[in-house]
Amino acid sequence: MPPTIDPTKRGATLPSDPPEGPVTLINSFVVDPRRDEAFEALWTQTSVYFRAQPGFVGLRLHRAVSPDATYRYVNVAVWESAAQFAAAHATEEFRQVVGQPGWREFPSSPTLYEVAIAYDAQPIAR
Amino acid sequence: MPPTIDPTKRGATLPSDPPEGPVTLINSFVVDPRRDEAFEALWTQTSVYFRAQPGFVGLRLHRAVSPDATYRYVNVAVWESAAQFAAAHATEEFRQVVGQPGWREFPSSPTLYEVAIAYDAQPIAR
Repeated sequence: MPPTIDPTKRGATLPSDPPEGPVTLINSFVVDPRRDEAFEALWTQTSVYFRAQPGFVGLRLHRAVSPDATYRYVNVAVWESAAQFAAAHATEEFRQVVGQPGWREFPSSPTLYEVAIAYDAQPIAR
Repeated sequence: MPPTIDPTKRGATLPSDPPEGPVTLINSFVVDPRRDEAFEALWTQTSVYFRAQPGFVGLRLHRAVSPDATYRYVNVAVWESAAQFAAAHATEEFRQVVGQPGWREFPSSPTLYEVAIAYDAQPIAR
């Protein structure tokens, strides 16, 4: 799916038979580097909604180091289940949050994934 | 950067002043779902090299749940530093591993990121 600013497409599409385990939203954003501050402020405000929803596990918002990045920001967010992810993206509050005019400046391409293979070199210190 | 099969572009570009902290490679792959098995086998074989390099922290290979995903697989790999990431992607062995003919079937768009914002709902059980 190409990047979009359509609020109705901000939830990622789901198959008729989603997996039962955890899922990961990978959402890549097109952002002009001169607009980093505006993007991060809007994103942080929007994330308040998601962080309060049942099934939210955690997220990392990544900012590009590579100067030729197509997507300057990539959000990687883990949810306990596809059902809880879908529920959080089907509310009226969700539509209001992502329907804000400010989002029109930052097209994104939300896609839902599951972890196929994982390796850790060693336990990660926290 | 658009997806590529050029082995010389498999390392992600770095700025002249990379960050000093950990970095995250986000590498998205175009894969025909009918070729999942072949892709995962080639990817697993290639990952053996990376997992043995100094500075490798961990990785998650994600497979799309969304049926309309542009990128069926996304690798999210954490490295201790941009310098160690760059070193692991500058060896002759690296060029041999990603220069295999099998990779020509799976274009990718490696891009290096740093974590800008992180939230966890609760400590993640490991």
